[in-house]
Amino acid sequence: MEQYILTELAEIVGAGQLATADEELVSYSYDGSGQEFLPEAIVFPGSTQEISRIMALAYREKFPVVVRGAGSGMTGGSLPLKGGLVMAMSRLNRILEIDQDNQVAVVEPGVINGDFQKKLNSLGLFYPPDPASLAFCTLGGNVAECAGGPSAVKYGVTRDYVLGLEVVLADGRIIETGVRTAKGVVGYDLTRLFVGSEGTLAIITRIILKLLPLPVASATFMVCCRSILQATRLVRDLLALQRPRTVEFMDNTAVSLIRERLPFSLPDNTAAILLIEVDGSKISVKNQSALLTEFLDSYDMLLVKRAEKQADAKILWQARRALSPAAFALRPDKISEDVVVPRSKIPELVTFTEKLAKKHNLPVFTFGHAGDGNIHVNIMLDKKNKDELDQAKAVRIALFSKVILLSGTLSGEHGVGNTKAEFLSRELSPDTLKLMRQVKGLFDPLNILNPGKIFRDDK
Amino acid sequence: MEQYILTELAEIVGAGQLATADEELVSYSYDGSGQEFLPEAIVFPGSTQEISRIMALAYREKFPVVVRGAGSGMTGGSLPLKGGLVMAMSRLNRILEIDQDNQVAVVEPGVINGDFQKKLNSLGLFYPPDPASLAFCTLGGNVAECAGGPSAVKYGVTRDYVLGLEVVLADGRIIETGVRTAKGVVGYDLTRLFVGSEGTLAIITRIILKLLPLPVASATFMVCCRSILQATRLVRDLLALQRPRTVEFMDNTAVSLIRERLPFSLPDNTAAILLIEVDGSKISVKNQSALLTEFLDSYDMLLVKRAEKQADAKILWQARRALSPAAFALRPDKISEDVVVPRSKIPELVTFTEKLAKKHNLPVFTFGHAGDGNIHVNIMLDKKNKDELDQAKAVRIALFSKVILLSGTLSGEHGVGNTKAEFLSRELSPDTLKLMRQVKGLFDPLNILNPGKIFRDDK
Repeated sequence: MEQYILTELAEIVGAGQLATADEELVSYSYDGSGQEFLPEAIVFPGSTQEISRIMALAYREKFPVVVRGAGSGMTGGSLPLKGGLVMAMSRLNRILEIDQDNQVAVVEPGVINGDFQKKLNSLGLFYPPDPASLAFCTLGGNVAECAGGPSAVKYGVTRDYVLGLEVVLADGRIIETGVRTAKGVVGYDLTRLFVGSEGTLAIITRIILKLLPLPVASATFMVCCRSILQATRLVRDLLALQRPRTVEFMDNTAVSLIRERLPFSLPDNTAAILLIEVDGSKISVKNQSALLTEFLDSYDMLLVKRAEKQADAKILWQARRALSPAAFALRPDKISEDVVVPRSKIPELVTFTEKLAKKHNLPVFTFGHAGDGNIHVNIMLDKKNKDELDQAKAVRIALFSKVILLSGTLSGEHGVGNTKAEFLSRELSPDTLKLMRQVKGLFDPLNILNPGKIFRDDK
Repeated sequence: MEQYILTELAEIVGAGQLATADEELVSYSYDGSGQEFLPEAIVFPGSTQEISRIMALAYREKFPVVVRGAGSGMTGGSLPLKGGLVMAMSRLNRILEIDQDNQVAVVEPGVINGDFQKKLNSLGLFYPPDPASLAFCTLGGNVAECAGGPSAVKYGVTRDYVLGLEVVLADGRIIETGVRTAKGVVGYDLTRLFVGSEGTLAIITRIILKLLPLPVASATFMVCCRSILQATRLVRDLLALQRPRTVEFMDNTAVSLIRERLPFSLPDNTAAILLIEVDGSKISVKNQSALLTEFLDSYDMLLVKRAEKQADAKILWQARRALSPAAFALRPDKISEDVVVPRSKIPELVTFTEKLAKKHNLPVFTFGHAGDGNIHVNIMLDKKNKDELDQAKAVRIALFSKVILLSGTLSGEHGVGNTKAEFLSRELSPDTLKLMRQVKGLFDPLNILNPGKIFRDDK
């Protein structure tokens, strides 16, 4: 990046808000995907107006701009593939408004999901999207990737809570989209076009979110299943009756990784575990729990345990979240995919991955959001071992092919980024892909907004 | 439309599926908006392939194509403003698949909402969007307009249930968008860009819908309020506690129109009525009703009546639906707007419309979905009376200005069509509007898909 551009950038944001030192560049060169790409500079804008001026400059000088929240993305969304400028949103971290009467909030993109949740909860309000990284991921990143989480089976994903946006376009113009009301159908739905567009169409500078009243009570159940098939059938029958807040699944490899951390001892022949949580008012949770218990009793499960105390529920969820770190006992590296299949196809997918693991001689385990058919498939390997890397690549390709065959999709919440860009044509037809590229071309004719993401080549 | 084009159309669909006789053209010239525009021909395609060939022909010959479901739209969406071809979807009326295990349905656009509901209910399934016209409106039209209905306050609108689409593009290419799984974030969200695009971006030929388990029980309450303000405060406090299936509102002019049809006699000083319905499992409805009763008791309401029998509930909802026809006792014509404001602004909006009515000497009454802030404002007039027509226009303009001032939107569920196209620039900034026009230009470069809708000029 040439000096006169850096000078202009410093003029826009102030010299203290521009970083170019090597150690700073390195700090902003990686994310949750385990890749590394060095930016040429990092800018920390303090307002929409500054972002507008930065984009006008980028448009004039044709340099890439890659927006970064917390860098917790799993597919490389915040990495500067082609160099250029990383725009860190850490200063735009204000909750601008919480309108309790109308259950609407207005936030800046750098607000951390977990901080926002806590603030809302203290007011008796609730924002459901709960990605595993909620303690540090930002709402802007959540919107850019359309983040989900365990509670999506009942409450939906980020898309379902974004009412409107303020964005800066590639050339620096500022526009508003959507509404701050519960409904709105005036003009095209640009809001939801921007949700999940991974920073490739515009820069999100303000977010209007729909809120819900806080469910004050919850109850957690752990269910040990005799087989994957039994687990899936249970999920199907359960969802025909009620919508729990979460229906999480772990296969037996996953279970073996956290067995010692669980508050209950498991039968030896446990093939899979389900974690089911219901929430709502106290009386509603009481009733849902009674219904759920009756339902589970009618099944021939290995074990059903209700976490009677809040502490036990906490241990269960801690064990669930400990899965990812525990996996490194198997191998030093992990490739984690978040494929989705119709719920009824979960047994076929899980059985398939078990066979794949054997065939390619790599540990593969699955867990995830069974209620949504959103299964996290984790391929464990040593990346320094060339053969294991090749085997892992083969597993990945076979997995994606199978998912498409099962009428599924390659990503439920992580997005495409650069890590899955090469597989897009397996899911989307040439005409669909062409249309998406044309949309990209319309919003970002110079290809300066997060180039190299979603689409493989950037022409 | 020249003869050789008609000949080619007949070759595509068969001679029996093309209509050009005057009386047929007239039958397809009007809709729920009370306007009339004659098409040059009507075609009844029997498959996506036929629609693809029709669009290739339209693209080559540059004639307008306007898709029509049941013609129940309120803003002219299905009317051929610029002549050309009306494409009636009545033959594409098959429910292609109901996947009970995964709670997903695949339908053609001509399926009638009410028929679909009945079929689903018999299987213990549920599709929430319930526009007032559900007995005859089509799912294709619902998707094109992003239809809502009373149950949106709990269950959301059409957008929230469309997982994926098959569409035919302006030049005849067929593409699929979205997924048939609960989640999916691969590529841009073209699905939701098409939802609510009013037939201006592509032709919807197949719809993948998310379903829910059927709530088996419900309970309906009628609440008489001392003032609009009391009604609105009640709605605010109620929604902080629970999400009823519906929270419908009627102002006192509306109440006076149906007073005799209600199963309960009303206190004389009733300023507004709320109809509140809760639904769910039997036990859940019992508990929600108990909570609601306790909540209502804590308010100083004029009257609270629970419809103890299914029959009473039915009468209440029939009275609510009788509002529109009953209104013609006031004047022979009606202009009905479906504006939305933040819920807390409802009193200001309703008070404002009362003043407007007085100032312009026209009966104006309001009712609608209080839980969503989606208020139907009905201006009664005699269109043959020039002065009343002018006054009604003035009321409409003043209403729209006020709605924007209150951070609202001009339409919650009816769409823009041609009747509101001229007001779009009041809600959207020039840059937002320009971007939407560019999106239109990208998808429909020849402006042959429903020209004259959403945007005022079609260049």
